[in-house]
Amino acid sequence: MSRIHISEVGPRDGLQSIARVMPLDAKKAWIAAEAAAGVPEIEVGSFVPPSLLPQMADTAELVAFARGIEGLAVAALVPNLKGAERAIAAGAQKISMPFSMSETHSLKNVRKDHAAVIAEIRAIAALVAAQPEETRPHFEIGLATAFGCTIEGVVSEEAVVRLAVASIEAGAVEVGLSDTTGYANPAQVKRLVRKVKAAVGDSRLNTLHLHNTRGLGLANALAGLDEGITTLDSSLGGLGGCPFAPGASGNIVTEDLVFMLAAMGYETGIDLDKLLKVRAIVAEALPGEPLYGFTPDAGLPLGFGKVAA
Amino acid sequence: MSRIHISEVGPRDGLQSIARVMPLDAKKAWIAAEAAAGVPEIEVGSFVPPSLLPQMADTAELVAFARGIEGLAVAALVPNLKGAERAIAAGAQKISMPFSMSETHSLKNVRKDHAAVIAEIRAIAALVAAQPEETRPHFEIGLATAFGCTIEGVVSEEAVVRLAVASIEAGAVEVGLSDTTGYANPAQVKRLVRKVKAAVGDSRLNTLHLHNTRGLGLANALAGLDEGITTLDSSLGGLGGCPFAPGASGNIVTEDLVFMLAAMGYETGIDLDKLLKVRAIVAEALPGEPLYGFTPDAGLPLGFGKVAA
Repeated sequence: MSRIHISEVGPRDGLQSIARVMPLDAKKAWIAAEAAAGVPEIEVGSFVPPSLLPQMADTAELVAFARGIEGLAVAALVPNLKGAERAIAAGAQKISMPFSMSETHSLKNVRKDHAAVIAEIRAIAALVAAQPEETRPHFEIGLATAFGCTIEGVVSEEAVVRLAVASIEAGAVEVGLSDTTGYANPAQVKRLVRKVKAAVGDSRLNTLHLHNTRGLGLANALAGLDEGITTLDSSLGGLGGCPFAPGASGNIVTEDLVFMLAAMGYETGIDLDKLLKVRAIVAEALPGEPLYGFTPDAGLPLGFGKVAA
Repeated sequence: MSRIHISEVGPRDGLQSIARVMPLDAKKAWIAAEAAAGVPEIEVGSFVPPSLLPQMADTAELVAFARGIEGLAVAALVPNLKGAERAIAAGAQKISMPFSMSETHSLKNVRKDHAAVIAEIRAIAALVAAQPEETRPHFEIGLATAFGCTIEGVVSEEAVVRLAVASIEAGAVEVGLSDTTGYANPAQVKRLVRKVKAAVGDSRLNTLHLHNTRGLGLANALAGLDEGITTLDSSLGGLGGCPFAPGASGNIVTEDLVFMLAAMGYETGIDLDKLLKVRAIVAEALPGEPLYGFTPDAGLPLGFGKVAA
């Protein structure tokens, strides 16, 4: 069966959503253990000003550390051109910039309207294009609040399609759809993936970034798989959430997601037994922090991997 | 869009899985509140010997009480002919008997091999057929451990198909597929629903009974919907679980399931705001008991129910 690419975003989306700062050594241990379990890509942090997010102050060091791990793709989030410059200087192989489909959310979060964000995308694309081919990062736009916004409510699908096209025209290589607020449902996921793929081209939308805020995370992932999504962001232990969404739990849980994919026969390259052991590293570094997921408690089914007659 | 029938099984599957006995008045309040929220069917208890499950000792009283609620379909679980006699005497409109697809599990649980269970189905079907038409209950077989067993591991799909056919031939009106152990994955759900429907006829398999043991419950429900499943069992707050599956959480969560269905545009006849308030009744009657689900904490999305452009 086909291969699904897992991008672990816990060290970025998870850690930026909790107040405590995870020590650098614990972050390194986490990243190294997940890579050793076969996770092919990790978003190790965010290049935002440390004054805003002290949890992410060591992102450059983490990029350098993670680049030393054979076979791992090292991703980082950037909020703007300045962040992109820092990410490229640090050696990130993939840079991802969020672009909020809700203009109100965009103004509140990064004080930019849609036109200003598109100008920023164009500037980053020029910077990326100016890099030598062998160190040129993959530049992706995360279409945030694509399924609804905690400030605006319903987000127009026509607007998402239009802004996805504008992002590609401004020079992004790919767009991804982000359910920042945990508003998505499977029918909506199918519909929006189909519409955006039709507008930007099949190969320009591969990624879903989902939260499990209302428990629908894996059902939404399944809906995405049905529409040809091949990359899923997730967070070990479901760490993290959106600070603007009260009661929001974090990203979909890497452990449960990988279990689902493996059970369905998808290849992920990930060793589930090894992955389940990584949780202890996070739990030890963040005592008392809620971790989500069911597979870690339940364990793998008896006879898992054997084929039924 | 199409209508999905929700069967609340918390008062049976949830309460039989916890040691404490919920007082009769609290059970009545729970059942009345869920019916008032529009839940069309409730499995109010199980006709097992009270010496085995004291939590279910008041099932006959609950059937009588629930029968007084206009528009509510009243279901009860029966382990055998004797239970069916009691259920019919009490006035249950639907009786459901579990039939474990794993013969080891069946022997351990009810001390019957498959042939003995089929003989029991035949006896119950005769009893049901002998009832006057206006009080004749709907007789369904729940194909338990259909997706795997904690004792046998993998369960043969060919065996599930064969035993589903045998159940119908023995006089059951319908079969349902039960993921008793929380082993199911969406690909397996699709495959097995398709195979069983093909063997017994489309109208003879409508129901999935799912647990959220590994977090895949709603994804499995979605897979079932894709294959024409129209009835889903669920439990308020995800109460309950399988005592033979260590670490197993309970059934899929009614609140999250109904949110998913409503968000997708399915009709359930259930008022979500009212449903979310029922949880307080269960929480108050069972202080400290873990309740699952995300929608109750997160609340409904801003603008929920409005259509996106």
